[in-house]
Amino acid sequence: MNPQTAYRNLLAHVKETHLLVATSNLLDWDQEVMMPQGGGAVGFRAAQLGQLARLIHERSTDTRIGDWLAAAEADAQLTADPLSATAVNLRELRRDFDNARKIPVTLAEEFAKASAMSKHAWADARSKNDYAAFRPHLHRMIELNRQKAACWAPGSAEPWDALADKYEPNMTAAHIERLFAPLRRDLVGLVNDLLARPRKPDARFNEIKLPLEDQKRFVHYVAQQVGFDFTRGRLDTSSHPFCGGTHRDDVRMTTRFQHHMLSDSLGSTLHESGHGIYEQNLPGAEHIGTPLGEAVSLSIHESQSRLIENQVGRSKAFWRWCYPKLKEFFGSAVADLSFDDVYGAVNLVERSLIRTESDEATYSLHIMVRFELERAMIRGDLAAADLPGAWNERYKQYLGIDVPDDARGCMQDIHWSMGALGYFPTYTLGTLYAAQFFDTARQQIGDIDRQFERGEFQPLVHWLNRHIHNEGKRYRSEDLCRHVTGRPLSAEPLLNHLRSKLEDIYNRA
Amino acid sequence: MNPQTAYRNLLAHVKETHLLVATSNLLDWDQEVMMPQGGGAVGFRAAQLGQLARLIHERSTDTRIGDWLAAAEADAQLTADPLSATAVNLRELRRDFDNARKIPVTLAEEFAKASAMSKHAWADARSKNDYAAFRPHLHRMIELNRQKAACWAPGSAEPWDALADKYEPNMTAAHIERLFAPLRRDLVGLVNDLLARPRKPDARFNEIKLPLEDQKRFVHYVAQQVGFDFTRGRLDTSSHPFCGGTHRDDVRMTTRFQHHMLSDSLGSTLHESGHGIYEQNLPGAEHIGTPLGEAVSLSIHESQSRLIENQVGRSKAFWRWCYPKLKEFFGSAVADLSFDDVYGAVNLVERSLIRTESDEATYSLHIMVRFELERAMIRGDLAAADLPGAWNERYKQYLGIDVPDDARGCMQDIHWSMGALGYFPTYTLGTLYAAQFFDTARQQIGDIDRQFERGEFQPLVHWLNRHIHNEGKRYRSEDLCRHVTGRPLSAEPLLNHLRSKLEDIYNRA
Repeated sequence: MNPQTAYRNLLAHVKETHLLVATSNLLDWDQEVMMPQGGGAVGFRAAQLGQLARLIHERSTDTRIGDWLAAAEADAQLTADPLSATAVNLRELRRDFDNARKIPVTLAEEFAKASAMSKHAWADARSKNDYAAFRPHLHRMIELNRQKAACWAPGSAEPWDALADKYEPNMTAAHIERLFAPLRRDLVGLVNDLLARPRKPDARFNEIKLPLEDQKRFVHYVAQQVGFDFTRGRLDTSSHPFCGGTHRDDVRMTTRFQHHMLSDSLGSTLHESGHGIYEQNLPGAEHIGTPLGEAVSLSIHESQSRLIENQVGRSKAFWRWCYPKLKEFFGSAVADLSFDDVYGAVNLVERSLIRTESDEATYSLHIMVRFELERAMIRGDLAAADLPGAWNERYKQYLGIDVPDDARGCMQDIHWSMGALGYFPTYTLGTLYAAQFFDTARQQIGDIDRQFERGEFQPLVHWLNRHIHNEGKRYRSEDLCRHVTGRPLSAEPLLNHLRSKLEDIYNRA
Repeated sequence: MNPQTAYRNLLAHVKETHLLVATSNLLDWDQEVMMPQGGGAVGFRAAQLGQLARLIHERSTDTRIGDWLAAAEADAQLTADPLSATAVNLRELRRDFDNARKIPVTLAEEFAKASAMSKHAWADARSKNDYAAFRPHLHRMIELNRQKAACWAPGSAEPWDALADKYEPNMTAAHIERLFAPLRRDLVGLVNDLLARPRKPDARFNEIKLPLEDQKRFVHYVAQQVGFDFTRGRLDTSSHPFCGGTHRDDVRMTTRFQHHMLSDSLGSTLHESGHGIYEQNLPGAEHIGTPLGEAVSLSIHESQSRLIENQVGRSKAFWRWCYPKLKEFFGSAVADLSFDDVYGAVNLVERSLIRTESDEATYSLHIMVRFELERAMIRGDLAAADLPGAWNERYKQYLGIDVPDDARGCMQDIHWSMGALGYFPTYTLGTLYAAQFFDTARQQIGDIDRQFERGEFQPLVHWLNRHIHNEGKRYRSEDLCRHVTGRPLSAEPLLNHLRSKLEDIYNRA
């Protein structure tokens, strides 16, 4: 087969598959955001999604892909420049195809079925705080993940690596351990130091109840100001915030309005705006539906959401701009909150039980607990039956907190229930990348604080567009980091960022 | 092949196809209601819909369907009771399969492409009032429809019949002409009589501008009261109201808020509620995705929307209940409107230019113009070039009105542009069925006016559920009419309904 023809056929095939993926994503979004409560009763939506998953799986494992790949790879011209669209697409499609083909159809189907059942059982067990009811499902998901790992990396001493590689290419437990160890030591120290102080920031802003409609208008306004394009996207409400949609010109993000708490809805909105801005600025035109048109990895995606949520949305300069807006939108309801009250509250450090409600300093400690435990479960060193004890022990050790029950302990997250083991570390990797990217952006852009104070976020967003978003999947995570920041990923930028900001805030409290 | 097995395979196949249809419907709904304005720019959504249409077409013309049908039909047991689910499903699937197979793939694809281009050209030409730009597209759609008709009914002297049969099984132009002739004569007479009178109802209620958010709350409330189940459906806004969704437990209807005119948004909402209530009460469980689980036809669907819009929503008894609600929701804005003002305004008869804005008495005259012209175009008796003249002439004759331009004349509707010829009469057939069904309901239920006055619409809705909705596609339109009302369809009930109501209103004005 002619290599050019093979490459063209290959791309046409994956673009067609991508349409089905986009349709499935839209159905997911609709289910969370728009579907009436009775709409899922007879399993109709599940059947629609199952059908699309089957069609996608069939297309993704089509043997013609192997033929097209082999023919295209045989032409050295096509991959001469490893950063060209052609080379990147062939690299990623080869990876995806080999990974998909290594999993027998029977295992893939068993996994999908067990995952759906387990997710269901988890939701039920969590609501009843009944870990025993969830345990056999978790056990099954661990076993099936071990089988998957054995298909991808037979005989590996660290089977977790093969699982994590699906979410974060080339990432290994050993590498994460090297990054996490100093981070854990220093974060635990920082948190203990701050919490030992006699004074802490005023928490009222986090507890104030503000009218829902005003909050909606406010977070919409802020999302737009920081750079989310509402002509090519939406912001709606769902119980768990996420960023979905179909392609770069139709990005759908959600936020939540929990207990009417603005600091939570604003934080969620800024976080999802980071994801949304990334999606909206991926390579367009002929790259839509091809690997080059996609985000680098979960951790780089998370770096963009964390950067907007934390480096922007929890900065003093951002609040110099946002504090007057707060007064403008909410008037008398926030009249007795000073700038320091608000800025302090959004940066308040607390011993937290729930990952998704935790602050910037403790967040990564939640992740480390999960990383260590899932790694042990996949190695066979920790049984599902022993998870609650191990969980509670680590929460005491890292976060200094007693876990009152499993619902707020090892059953708080959906990830393991649906079989996503190897996923959690990407959250902290993203947090580290965010701090390191932002350091470089600050050096290259100039007086970013003055810009934020004036509500000018375009220089930062354009920098992110140019260096990260517009590159799509050209670089792997670590290579992108070196390319953009000149250094490999390290924990130092995050630690410096947290130390200097929190010292300042706690000294002023 | 074992007939039972063949039937089981057949149903499994069509249910699977139905999932794709439901997914396509959801994408359509989303495009009209939720998609951000830039979301369709690169043709991504069109590509998603095109892909689903291809998958649906492939499945619908699968030769195995013919084998399964033949095997099942060979077992007399399966169709012994012609009203059993089995017999109904075999009857309808045979019809669909034979129809689909008679159209060559090349013609189907050409039609789909030309239709998309034509729809696009129509929207553009209409906005510029440029019929010449649309004419070649209309010509092409007529030609392609003639080709389709020739596939379905070679050599027919009335090729329109074969096209109409797709929308309304067994309906013929001759039959419609017999129904329409006396209706046209009497409607023209009634309208001329009413408009010749020196006094007419107060029109202020149709012109009053009310706050959008209050209107939204109001139409939501009314839709719920008349029987739409919001736990299994939604009501949103779109420029052209429609009723979509995926299945009986997830029905999505829309309304519009044109010029802030409540009488329009309420009318649209009641109309779509009629469609929505029908969909929500179709046979459930194992019938979902099979013919028996579907509505009878376009005209019967329209009868349900017209019945709620007109027989309910324009009745004096309904307004006895609704008038105080109007005061409750809109307060001082409607303070100086009397009951007679409001009830008169929603029943005002006017010489109208636009079908979708016309009143209950003139509506069918708009349809007759279209029926006569599309029938002539399909027979080859009227060329696309001569359409505007013929259109304007008939508007003068039937509606007594001069058409100022083609945008508000023969280009006002989307139907012909997308190739839907043979469709329009179903609107008036539905209007006739509505009046006839309602007469029977009134006889069987008892004092329906007193119920409406108290806001009790359940007795009517339950009657409709039992006699029409729950039956799905068991009967053909005409058979259902005879079964429910004891008589074949006639224009008398509609004429009696309009005469007695409008005489009363115009005498009181």
